[in-house]
Amino acid sequence: MPFNETLRRRIRERKSMVCVGLDVDPARLPAPLRDKPDPLFRFLKGIIEATSSLVLAYKPNLAFYESLGVEGWDLLRRTLRLIPEGIIKIGDAKRGDIGSTAEKYASALFDLGFDAVTVNPYLGRDTVTPFVRDPEKGCFLLCLTSNPSSHDFQYLRAEGKCLYEHIAERAGVWNDGGNVGLVVGATHPRELSGLRRIAPDLPFLIPGIGAQGGDLEAAVMNGGDASGESVVINSSRAILYASSGADFADMAAVQTSMLRDAIAAAQEKKRAARL
Amino acid sequence: MPFNETLRRRIRERKSMVCVGLDVDPARLPAPLRDKPDPLFRFLKGIIEATSSLVLAYKPNLAFYESLGVEGWDLLRRTLRLIPEGIIKIGDAKRGDIGSTAEKYASALFDLGFDAVTVNPYLGRDTVTPFVRDPEKGCFLLCLTSNPSSHDFQYLRAEGKCLYEHIAERAGVWNDGGNVGLVVGATHPRELSGLRRIAPDLPFLIPGIGAQGGDLEAAVMNGGDASGESVVINSSRAILYASSGADFADMAAVQTSMLRDAIAAAQEKKRAARL
Repeated sequence: MPFNETLRRRIRERKSMVCVGLDVDPARLPAPLRDKPDPLFRFLKGIIEATSSLVLAYKPNLAFYESLGVEGWDLLRRTLRLIPEGIIKIGDAKRGDIGSTAEKYASALFDLGFDAVTVNPYLGRDTVTPFVRDPEKGCFLLCLTSNPSSHDFQYLRAEGKCLYEHIAERAGVWNDGGNVGLVVGATHPRELSGLRRIAPDLPFLIPGIGAQGGDLEAAVMNGGDASGESVVINSSRAILYASSGADFADMAAVQTSMLRDAIAAAQEKKRAARL
Repeated sequence: MPFNETLRRRIRERKSMVCVGLDVDPARLPAPLRDKPDPLFRFLKGIIEATSSLVLAYKPNLAFYESLGVEGWDLLRRTLRLIPEGIIKIGDAKRGDIGSTAEKYASALFDLGFDAVTVNPYLGRDTVTPFVRDPEKGCFLLCLTSNPSSHDFQYLRAEGKCLYEHIAERAGVWNDGGNVGLVVGATHPRELSGLRRIAPDLPFLIPGIGAQGGDLEAAVMNGGDASGESVVINSSRAILYASSGADFADMAAVQTSMLRDAIAAAQEKKRAARL
């Protein structure tokens, strides 16, 4: 089954659009774990066990693992094994390179067991090809990112459209396998509406709520489609570091649950507005 | 000393602008190494020992290491230790992410011992900041890439200029620490002249000769500046896989030497043309 169809089905089955971003940072470990052996693994295990019934997906952020060196790659492998069957695993790597090199990045990530990855489209189609070849594997292209400097290049207007809109259009063309999505920051609520018009069929992976200040309700209202199965809302720090004490996992679950409910409420409001 | 100044000095001292790209691929290992223990390390050791007197820089390509899994990261660490003092180590990772994540990528790469890295600028200034904070470390921004699909987005014209020209302009602004460079493919010889005018002071890392079909002489003539110390020419496969037999290291040295001489001849021709 093509990835985008799997994603829709999982959103229905799991009744959740929440993706927990695994930005695993030794500097922010809860205090009670610091003196224990293998503390990062214990932390991730606690977070995943407490939240897995509430989420659609987990999104390990490769930068955080890479900054741990060789041990980080081993930890990434062990993290993926912690994630129960049926939950989507998104590798947030934002890779992008010429064809022969992109092949290697794609096999590195998919061989680890990721169901989908994030890809930087600046190098164009041949960068993306190896990541979309298997329709069962998903590829979220960076489109309009959540950071303040997204304005530097992404809003440049060419041929009457912004660069990020060009990327969204191409992503639609490249979606012939049914497995391309877009990364669009919740910090751009108005642009989300326009992007939904340009790419009516693509799933949007939406980071930027919480610490980065994006508006959740606007993200769901503007980014979603009629089905309510087209949006994945990511939260990382607000969930992982909800508490720095022994109750870190419980507090992560509380935050995840609140986020899931807030998304459902926004979705309901959207549905009501359409009637 | 700022990285770009170190680079110029090393080009003078080593009388070479050759960068050997370390795209280490198990499928292309010379046959006599395949049954030996630790064959990839033996291969890299052979290549580096045979070519190190002829080169300015080595550029490990992280995709190839990552596709080897945990062992790949260990191999990368051991590869960096093989490179003699005084030779520049460029981490070809093409990372690009929002500020807090970019910090992690930057520390991951610089902690490994790289002197410079390649960075994808699509996300804008805050992506780049962590990579340029230390003036002694270099940051080559992807500008106009060597692959065929570079035409998809990089040539979009906004405000009278192509996207890749916008990036070159910004790179000049972001070079206040004297450590920003550009990646420009040799497959775009005409555009190299224009970029040299836009960014007269930035070093260009030029891939795309050899297997990808770029013209070396045009790259040096059009991409170089008057000093002849502003261009780094990368070659990967043509050197690494010059022979699949027991003479792989000797043949790699022959190819490297030929490339160094061809660059010098082009440089001489450029100098003569200016007189």
